[in-house]
Amino acid sequence: MYDLLITGADVLQLEGQRATVLPRHCIAVAEGRIAAIAPTISPGLATTTLSARGMLAIPGFVNAHAHTAMGLFRGVVEDVAVEAWFNDYIWPMETNLTDEDVYWGALLGLAEMIEAGVTSVADHYFAMDEVARAVTESGVRANLAWAIFSGPDEERSLARSVQFVERWHGAADGRISAWLGPHSPYTCTPDFLARVALTARQIGSGIHIHLSETAAQVAQSLAAHGKTPVAVARDAGLFEVPALAAHVAHPSADDIAIMAAHAVAVASTPKTEMKLGIGVAPIGTLLASGVTVGLGSDGAASNNSYDMLEVARLSALLEKHRCQDAHAMPIGVALALATRGGACAMGLGGISGELRVGLAADIVLVRRDTPHAQPIHDPAANLLYSASASDVDTVIVAGRVLMRGRKLLTIDRRRVLREVARRAARLAGRPSTRVAHYPEPATSDA
Amino acid sequence: MYDLLITGADVLQLEGQRATVLPRHCIAVAEGRIAAIAPTISPGLATTTLSARGMLAIPGFVNAHAHTAMGLFRGVVEDVAVEAWFNDYIWPMETNLTDEDVYWGALLGLAEMIEAGVTSVADHYFAMDEVARAVTESGVRANLAWAIFSGPDEERSLARSVQFVERWHGAADGRISAWLGPHSPYTCTPDFLARVALTARQIGSGIHIHLSETAAQVAQSLAAHGKTPVAVARDAGLFEVPALAAHVAHPSADDIAIMAAHAVAVASTPKTEMKLGIGVAPIGTLLASGVTVGLGSDGAASNNSYDMLEVARLSALLEKHRCQDAHAMPIGVALALATRGGACAMGLGGISGELRVGLAADIVLVRRDTPHAQPIHDPAANLLYSASASDVDTVIVAGRVLMRGRKLLTIDRRRVLREVARRAARLAGRPSTRVAHYPEPATSDA
Repeated sequence: MYDLLITGADVLQLEGQRATVLPRHCIAVAEGRIAAIAPTISPGLATTTLSARGMLAIPGFVNAHAHTAMGLFRGVVEDVAVEAWFNDYIWPMETNLTDEDVYWGALLGLAEMIEAGVTSVADHYFAMDEVARAVTESGVRANLAWAIFSGPDEERSLARSVQFVERWHGAADGRISAWLGPHSPYTCTPDFLARVALTARQIGSGIHIHLSETAAQVAQSLAAHGKTPVAVARDAGLFEVPALAAHVAHPSADDIAIMAAHAVAVASTPKTEMKLGIGVAPIGTLLASGVTVGLGSDGAASNNSYDMLEVARLSALLEKHRCQDAHAMPIGVALALATRGGACAMGLGGISGELRVGLAADIVLVRRDTPHAQPIHDPAANLLYSASASDVDTVIVAGRVLMRGRKLLTIDRRRVLREVARRAARLAGRPSTRVAHYPEPATSDA
Repeated sequence: MYDLLITGADVLQLEGQRATVLPRHCIAVAEGRIAAIAPTISPGLATTTLSARGMLAIPGFVNAHAHTAMGLFRGVVEDVAVEAWFNDYIWPMETNLTDEDVYWGALLGLAEMIEAGVTSVADHYFAMDEVARAVTESGVRANLAWAIFSGPDEERSLARSVQFVERWHGAADGRISAWLGPHSPYTCTPDFLARVALTARQIGSGIHIHLSETAAQVAQSLAAHGKTPVAVARDAGLFEVPALAAHVAHPSADDIAIMAAHAVAVASTPKTEMKLGIGVAPIGTLLASGVTVGLGSDGAASNNSYDMLEVARLSALLEKHRCQDAHAMPIGVALALATRGGACAMGLGGISGELRVGLAADIVLVRRDTPHAQPIHDPAANLLYSASASDVDTVIVAGRVLMRGRKLLTIDRRRVLREVARRAARLAGRPSTRVAHYPEPATSDA
């Protein structure tokens, strides 16, 4: 007996560079996994049936690098260079964040992600117990890392992170994995990075770190250590464990070879990097060298959203622009980066990220009965280049329906918006704005 | 007495580089124009009142360069270089277009544009009587140009275009303007361009043309004529009349000076140009030289959508990336390009494109009660970087409501989708796919 049966969907398949569709197929789910994909499966075999007539079934998007709770700061500072952005605006406000703020900020971000068809997220922040709580409630899949920095408290920070990993790794029915989160080589000393690497090996954890986000960081690293941030991380032993490196916008040829040799995955976050004018990872070069690449949003204070379809589209457009070649990053590759690539990057390779029998039932159904989604000459092209996050109708993680007909089933959307408006106003030091709801505004004749 | 009163909206104001908001204001409309903007206006003074509580009122987006009916070819050929894209795929299919196809394709595109908050479009295509018919019915504002090329039929083409201008300029209560549409210097001889320019002067028309879309076009022009496409157009006299130049991705410094001196407007279409890998206009350089810049979608066969918010966002991101400077193209500029800039480019400067008393009531109301649109630290930032076309709730052109609560009021959406699916299948040479509708798909327990 199946727990769930999806009927009548065009089912997206991403193999190599190709995106194809199994037309009008059924997907059967049992015990959280995809049990069968076939043209016909009897509804009598399933407890629950969802009609996906006319919809495209896709693997859920994977956000391979986020600071989810930073949605609280969405739009708070704009058109400012990265140093001032962080030092003068974001960091002072972050110091005023309470644990409860992080919880509600995380729920806001997770609500936005589910509404955009994101089923897995790699999050790097602090007060991570609150993020884990929000992830648990929301039903998404997550890899969580508590950011740690060098400083007088570094040993205590590391110990707290280890406890966090022990508390949460494998939690929420296995939906949560927890890794160590050394912030970056420019905020952690090589000695401390080596301590973190050793600890990660001892506890069997991976690491999630920021590397080579700006050219200035690379230059500073060369001046201070005589080597790039990637080489610093490698020499500290961080690449002896599963490693997820965010940004890597400025890798040298040696950096790329190092990452390929050590199976380091890169989470590229092009929207943030374009917006801050700091350069974007040369994805085609990374892929050609065998580096695993996923896509990320970064925090919504810089991105300013958690829409991975937008990030996938932007990656493809930017890569074609960078190469001045319309053949660069074909549709199948861009969609694979935003799904399977991200899953591999965060330790979910072969577990999630594809619509394939045996993998987790992390499935998104996308509507197509709108002018912008018609006609359908190429379902994958319409998804990547014409669809919108708002076309996501249904989101399923581990076989559980988190959204149906765009209605969130695990998150109290109104309460989240109310809490967030109040907290965001306090953090920005201004009066709270009421969130207005207007399901059907009246039109009156006077 | 006002015809329409919008209450409780945050009203976006774009001046210079700045985007500000008049909080919770009313907008009164009379005889198709904005008659008043004030904190309070009595509903008793208006025939109809629309509540915009919690919404952002913005000037409608302006699509300054489109081939609207090409939505029929959305996604039909992807990841292919521009020459093959056009010559091997698009052009052979376009030769099979009937007038009725163009009509339904135009309605599809206009439905998509209205749903994305676009209130004005500059369209350049053929069978333009059909496009004019669709524009008339849909209620949007448009500048229409019938594409003409050199060849044995050039005189007849020009005569037909002149008749089209005479028939449609000022039609649909003044919502339609019609210009001549010489396709480009690479498809029109200098002599013919001079004939078109002379004709435009004689009939008091403007011209809409493609210029310097690719580096190859510029090189060919230099080889054939010893001057750039911009200089060819200038020397033909095309800039003696109001001129809208699409793309201009590869302007020389002289080209920019020529365009500034002759008040030639540029419609930049970055999504198409990135996707085809052909280069994008250096917007900051154009603006600094005093060139009027609007934004366009191009046709949905290459774009692949008519979402001008996406194009505005992409322009800002790409400009910051190009300049490697987060200060480049601030929010207020990007939004102004997508509204007032486009209006000026298509001859609607001082007529539409701004929320200002005396201008046309071309107004869009945007919802913000969603996770991705909250919190609101900066309404304009949230619009440019976080909102989605699907957040557009209400679209008003010349005081007439074309969409309310996302329901199209002037276009029969279902019929358009049905007609388009059938015609697109015929054009692509494959069986028609049924468009499925699923307002509330059933969930059944077995």
